Amino acid sequence: MQDRCGIVGISSKKNSPLAIYYSLYALQHRGQESAGIATYSNENKDIKLKRGLGLVSKCFSEEDIGQLDGNVGIGHVRYSTSVGTGIVDSQPFMVTHSKNKIAISHNGHIINSNQIRRDLENIGHLFTSNSDSEIIAHLFFRNFIKTEDLVKAAKKSMKKMEGSYSLAILLRDKLIALRDPHGIKPLCLGKYGDGYVIASESVALDTIGAEFIRDVKPGEMLIIQKNELESYQITEGNFSRCFFEHIYFARPDSIIDGKSNYKCRIEIGKKLGNDYSVENVDHVSPVPDSGITSAIGYSEASNTRYLECLMKNRYVGRTFIMPNQEDREKGVRLKLNTVKPNVRDKKIVLIDDSIVRGTTSKRIVKLLKNVGAEEIHLRVGSPPIRFPCHLGINMASREELIASKKDISSIKERIGVKTLDYISIEDMVEAIDIPRENLCLGCLTGKYPVEVGD
Amino acid sequence: MQDRCGIVGISSKKNSPLAIYYSLYALQHRGQESAGIATYSNENKDIKLKRGLGLVSKCFSEEDIGQLDGNVGIGHVRYSTSVGTGIVDSQPFMVTHSKNKIAISHNGHIINSNQIRRDLENIGHLFTSNSDSEIIAHLFFRNFIKTEDLVKAAKKSMKKMEGSYSLAILLRDKLIALRDPHGIKPLCLGKYGDGYVIASESVALDTIGAEFIRDVKPGEMLIIQKNELESYQITEGNFSRCFFEHIYFARPDSIIDGKSNYKCRIEIGKKLGNDYSVENVDHVSPVPDSGITSAIGYSEASNTRYLECLMKNRYVGRTFIMPNQEDREKGVRLKLNTVKPNVRDKKIVLIDDSIVRGTTSKRIVKLLKNVGAEEIHLRVGSPPIRFPCHLGINMASREELIASKKDISSIKERIGVKTLDYISIEDMVEAIDIPRENLCLGCLTGKYPVEVGD
Amino acid sequence: MQDRCGIVGISSKKNSPLAIYYSLYALQHRGQESAGIATYSNENKDIKLKRGLGLVSKCFSEEDIGQLDGNVGIGHVRYSTSVGTGIVDSQPFMVTHSKNKIAISHNGHIINSNQIRRDLENIGHLFTSNSDSEIIAHLFFRNFIKTEDLVKAAKKSMKKMEGSYSLAILLRDKLIALRDPHGIKPLCLGKYGDGYVIASESVALDTIGAEFIRDVKPGEMLIIQKNELESYQITEGNFSRCFFEHIYFARPDSIIDGKSNYKCRIEIGKKLGNDYSVENVDHVSPVPDSGITSAIGYSEASNTRYLECLMKNRYVGRTFIMPNQEDREKGVRLKLNTVKPNVRDKKIVLIDDSIVRGTTSKRIVKLLKNVGAEEIHLRVGSPPIRFPCHLGINMASREELIASKKDISSIKERIGVKTLDYISIEDMVEAIDIPRENLCLGCLTGKYPVEVGD
Amino acid sequence: MQDRCGIVGISSKKNSPLAIYYSLYALQHRGQESAGIATYSNENKDIKLKRGLGLVSKCFSEEDIGQLDGNVGIGHVRYSTSVGTGIVDSQPFMVTHSKNKIAISHNGHIINSNQIRRDLENIGHLFTSNSDSEIIAHLFFRNFIKTEDLVKAAKKSMKKMEGSYSLAILLRDKLIALRDPHGIKPLCLGKYGDGYVIASESVALDTIGAEFIRDVKPGEMLIIQKNELESYQITEGNFSRCFFEHIYFARPDSIIDGKSNYKCRIEIGKKLGNDYSVENVDHVSPVPDSGITSAIGYSEASNTRYLECLMKNRYVGRTFIMPNQEDREKGVRLKLNTVKPNVRDKKIVLIDDSIVRGTTSKRIVKLLKNVGAEEIHLRVGSPPIRFPCHLGINMASREELIASKKDISSIKERIGVKTLDYISIEDMVEAIDIPRENLCLGCLTGKYPVEVGD
Repeated sequence: MQDRCGIVGISSKKNSPLAIYYSLYALQHRGQESAGIATYSNENKDIKLKRGLGLVSKCFSEEDIGQLDGNVGIGHVRYSTSVGTGIVDSQPFMVTHSKNKIAISHNGHIINSNQIRRDLENIGHLFTSNSDSEIIAHLFFRNFIKTEDLVKAAKKSMKKMEGSYSLAILLRDKLIALRDPHGIKPLCLGKYGDGYVIASESVALDTIGAEFIRDVKPGEMLIIQKNELESYQITEGNFSRCFFEHIYFARPDSIIDGKSNYKCRIEIGKKLGNDYSVENVDHVSPVPDSGITSAIGYSEASNTRYLECLMKNRYVGRTFIMPNQEDREKGVRLKLNTVKPNVRDKKIVLIDDSIVRGTTSKRIVKLLKNVGAEEIHLRVGSPPIRFPCHLGINMASREELIASKKDISSIKERIGVKTLDYISIEDMVEAIDIPRENLCLGCLTGKYPVEVGD
Repeated sequence: MQDRCGIVGISSKKNSPLAIYYSLYALQHRGQESAGIATYSNENKDIKLKRGLGLVSKCFSEEDIGQLDGNVGIGHVRYSTSVGTGIVDSQPFMVTHSKNKIAISHNGHIINSNQIRRDLENIGHLFTSNSDSEIIAHLFFRNFIKTEDLVKAAKKSMKKMEGSYSLAILLRDKLIALRDPHGIKPLCLGKYGDGYVIASESVALDTIGAEFIRDVKPGEMLIIQKNELESYQITEGNFSRCFFEHIYFARPDSIIDGKSNYKCRIEIGKKLGNDYSVENVDHVSPVPDSGITSAIGYSEASNTRYLECLMKNRYVGRTFIMPNQEDREKGVRLKLNTVKPNVRDKKIVLIDDSIVRGTTSKRIVKLLKNVGAEEIHLRVGSPPIRFPCHLGINMASREELIASKKDISSIKERIGVKTLDYISIEDMVEAIDIPRENLCLGCLTGKYPVEVGD
Repeated sequence: MQDRCGIVGISSKKNSPLAIYYSLYALQHRGQESAGIATYSNENKDIKLKRGLGLVSKCFSEEDIGQLDGNVGIGHVRYSTSVGTGIVDSQPFMVTHSKNKIAISHNGHIINSNQIRRDLENIGHLFTSNSDSEIIAHLFFRNFIKTEDLVKAAKKSMKKMEGSYSLAILLRDKLIALRDPHGIKPLCLGKYGDGYVIASESVALDTIGAEFIRDVKPGEMLIIQKNELESYQITEGNFSRCFFEHIYFARPDSIIDGKSNYKCRIEIGKKLGNDYSVENVDHVSPVPDSGITSAIGYSEASNTRYLECLMKNRYVGRTFIMPNQEDREKGVRLKLNTVKPNVRDKKIVLIDDSIVRGTTSKRIVKLLKNVGAEEIHLRVGSPPIRFPCHLGINMASREELIASKKDISSIKERIGVKTLDYISIEDMVEAIDIPRENLCLGCLTGKYPVEVGD
Repeated sequence: MQDRCGIVGISSKKNSPLAIYYSLYALQHRGQESAGIATYSNENKDIKLKRGLGLVSKCFSEEDIGQLDGNVGIGHVRYSTSVGTGIVDSQPFMVTHSKNKIAISHNGHIINSNQIRRDLENIGHLFTSNSDSEIIAHLFFRNFIKTEDLVKAAKKSMKKMEGSYSLAILLRDKLIALRDPHGIKPLCLGKYGDGYVIASESVALDTIGAEFIRDVKPGEMLIIQKNELESYQITEGNFSRCFFEHIYFARPDSIIDGKSNYKCRIEIGKKLGNDYSVENVDHVSPVPDSGITSAIGYSEASNTRYLECLMKNRYVGRTFIMPNQEDREKGVRLKLNTVKPNVRDKKIVLIDDSIVRGTTSKRIVKLLKNVGAEEIHLRVGSPPIRFPCHLGINMASREELIASKKDISSIKERIGVKTLDYISIEDMVEAIDIPRENLCLGCLTGKYPVEVGD
């Protein structure tokens, strides 16, 4: 469960680059591999682009932000899903044609990107990277050049693209937001001073003091120019939101498509507490950070004491690779440490948001047992993940998903806990508080909102 | 409340530099300004030293650790308390005399360092930096050279030095630990494989899989050579531990002088919940991260719902300085964001570990009120700080301490909360579970365990 | 007179990246702004690309060269002629289509690049940079994709491109060399072990121990695959070599199109010595480095003593910009210093390779006079430059060329020398030892080998 | 022959740091390993120090120079002679005592530094590095603190120190120059605006537009304060200048102790041309750069044509180490290339400044022969080096000196030339134009101006 990207776009009379920079800080949890900002300046009628590898704080100096002057711009933070990790694959991606330039920030995954690429290549397009975003940029830009009409360009492009895409596009002085017909990846709109902001999560708006207006609708395109906002419903849209944004990806303080992530995670904890509580344990404890809120919910519903057993080291960045087995276990200890008095001889309910491969869970359980935990009961905030994601989350292949091959009892054995329970799909859907038909549950059920081929 | 340093020393047949490196990761919260490692190699009979500015992850490459080979070594992470922030002032500090070299890592503050420096200068010593550590190194090394006896050298040096000092010293193949007669700063001992480890906090031991043995006693010196441990009680020792280590500095998963920090902070919360609970509030919420554990305790004792109102951005590193007032407030929003549904129209008990200047508290309260908090009741996990610290904590000068000039009612007004309560000294001491006479409460009472001059 | 780039291509069973790296060192004088290497590996059937800003020594680490494994590859060093100086504009430029990838290194200037770009844009091409090289890559690659025939692709592309171009192209495991129909920019071929090397100058061959075979012919394409060499005369070719390569750009130890640069410069000096010698001077002295060889020739022909008056600081790299007039003059003194005993009260013949704006000459003369030179006679190794270059040399615009507005007498006044003489076109052509019709003398005569528009 | 350092000191009403920075550029040939500047500001009464590893251009940013404000300061460039190459061993070295600070830049070698160090250690001094300069700083500073009299301090210190030392010292607002009683290493004085400059070579004065006044005398101390200059003859002085400064170390455009290096090297060439000319050769050619001037002199005296056979690559900086023999030879080709038409089938007289180990000469001869040189006659601008230097030049140990073990005939065989001749001591002394008794010829004769022990 590790793919996410963060996108942002701001149009304002104020200094946009600084606000984009702050917004990217707020979205840093969605990607730490590269960051970029592209801005359009009315003065020299040109787009400036600055990209770098690593954290936002490393990618931009104060001088960089100063040089990126302009009233309108877009930004991006990237989490690597695939091989290419060079600066060439970082975003925003920019492409130029005659006197037009276009820059694109993308979050999502285009399933048929290879087909679109082949089609574009057949009519003469050449590419410089392996990124979906370059393909989207070419497709959208080509359609715009031919039609000189953004609505037609969007309509034509969306007819082609299958998959998930939330886009922030910069075309001269226009800021464009586009969300796929299923609204799989999040995208929201806010008022920023005299202008507007679009961003992957509402926390980006909070950080710059912008006011949340609404989420972008599935299939909708927004065009923001000179601080005027126009909305176009390009295609019929019908939500199939990625449930993982609610339970894991997005920050708990984000409001995604009208729903508070915090409330959702509390509810998940309560459902687990109601349905799968354990008698005679000492306390319930989260796997930090993603399990914290659900553990609080569990505590309330089951009347179990809430107490932390694991502390996360806040300063673990890139450490160099440790060669042998012993050192790899040290790697786990670098990130997590036990609160010994809360573990030794204790019966513990442990709350985690999900289990993918099962290897991390196994290591954490071992860590607790080494310190003397008497019993560990694991409760999981999402149902068993049995199928791969085709829409932007880089899960393991199906073989690596522990729940694709094993039943719950075998998983319990493997991880080494006394009892193991997952929330049911129904309960999770209730907790998210969005109708089941409006959620993408593909990795749980194998039924995806779009054709995924083979 | 911002001064701390972390020290570590390891003697082992294993690769010490790598273990020191991991230990420094675990102590990173005690200082992010510089890091250093010094190791002694039996082969070339020499000490190697590598220091850098910034986080541990930035200071050492894999190659660096490889080159620092040796079985015995010391490390340091530094939190700047004073002006000098160059590499010259980073630690370990190394000094050489004839064929002897000595390297020192220091946590604490020598009150009479200027006097010692003058005395040493009068007999011809010359210095290269402004750090206490260089003065300690000169004093200790001089006494050792004259006596060629570590015990005598320690005795002579400790007679001179007033203040707080936990030291890890490397003298050829000897690893030496020394703790001041009041044991003000923490220092513990562990078994690491065939050898030993000394460190500021037990979490460093956990991280490398070492076994906690005991804390170093006040006034005690340990000499570890060829994995043999000798202990010398150099001076009469009597604990006056800094209470701030228990309630704020040290990690909650650390055991300091036999006491679990986690338990202490839970107890503080319980006392606050018992004594200063508020009726008819919606929930109790911590100022993250340091208020979390006490908020859990408050929740239990007062039967108030525990719910998070503030989320901390985990990725805020060094951002460049923002010039105007508006931007400085953005600075707060970069670090903390509200969980809106838990704040709007809510009556909230907020738990923080301490109030120093009061400015941060004021900004946080404003942040919550902007989102629509109905009532905020602030409960503080330490008594009012009325006096400066002279023993290693870089608090504001007395004028800047809000409680030195204002009574609680005025502070309440200033911060903008409905009610404000501090834990009493008695209750805090009970929570720490160490007799009052064995704690340094100087910043609360103005009575210090050592002469502080004027 | 400041534009040049260096290109290289190597196909060999040996480790090509290291040899390309060494070759770029030898061509470093042709460009210090950026460097890049692209290699094709038979194993993973892919092109790897590494580019950086600055000197070759800064752009590539040993690790980089190791990772660029492959038997065939191309390299580039770039001297900035235009605004864009980012990594995006550095070379080799790589573009991909279906399973094909192409990488291009270019030295020269395409006069009608804007027209070609517009034509390509009209049929749907999109671009990512402002460089000629991307346009060439698109044009050549498009023609290759359509025809799947390199000869046809070259023929079609060369019909379009007007201007100067020496190209090293990497297309899968094929290394392709292409030189424009006028052979304006240099390109030579050598035997390197079992394979081949192509490079801008023969010094690159010397450096890797390769054996010079011949120069690439104007209008010729070489295809090197699996160490087999094929030659195709794509268009009728007729040399119009840039004379500046012989007298200034290329290294004196290079053999360009069969002619030794060293010999050419000696001859230029001799012609100046025969035609414009000065009686009763103390010695002849070069403006280092480019005037050295001609000064030796002058000395011989005129029987004047050869003695150095100016020394060049070998270590002046990028210094930061000095704001005021006084500091700018210090800038000259940083680069050049006088040998005082050879200047004071001396009558000096000074030899320089060319005069463009005249500002540097003026400063040098002032430097010598300040030290007490009695008389300075300037002799120039190229005729007056009266017209701009349209084929790859970034001279000043016509207004800035001192000889476009002033006659020799006025220039003499301006620069401040006692006498001033330029070599005649005829003599220079004789010294180069290439028929006049086979040289491009556009900047001297205003008559260019290609249509230059307005 | 590879040890040199460059020192500079400036006292002026102008911006001293910028002038020091420029001066260090001019002295860069004396050391490329590290650079440093220390300045004293009258405002905050403190010395600021900035040091770095690598070239001057890399060590200082414009911001650094701006922050080093002050009217008086010293600088240093360092060529590594010994193991320690870290920042700790770079200069200026600074040490502090009470309210006094002293910073020292040193060029030379203290023979009895170990003894002085031991003596200082015996009275309690502790050190932090392995550099002579720290020892000098301690010795001088101690003597000053005791006497509060600079003249007495200098006298006492110079009585102790044996060896070579040219020093620039910064003591509060005083700039002090000190040269050893034998004046082994160069040091000159100039007028800079309203103030003064001291520097290793006169080229530093030229570069900042300062006017040469005179050389510092052996045994002399200059004290410059508030732009007032005082001179003290501390000890009887008697020149024993290092002859290598004249023939190799110092730049040819420098005037050292009243003698023009350029003229000296021309004379050396003339002597070689008179005494050891070869009939029927094609031309005489230098090993660049150090052989150039002498080759010009040889050409004149022997009436042999002067022509370059070897070109030096100006851009070869630090390349990574090449592992095998083949690659190491490539290393030579990276630095030097032949001018083939001047080598093939030619009989050449080659001029080099000196032969130390003989390995470089051998490689160069091989390079020329590979290209087809018919005969090579080597003429050397200094007599055979048979003894090590004890006064600051890091020659090989005696065993590595080719002339310590072999006679000229054997050296000729080893290097592979047809004839080999060295200048005689007498002729070289005449060329330098300084009486023999005033030169240090220790490495030629084994007789040193100071006691060198064993």
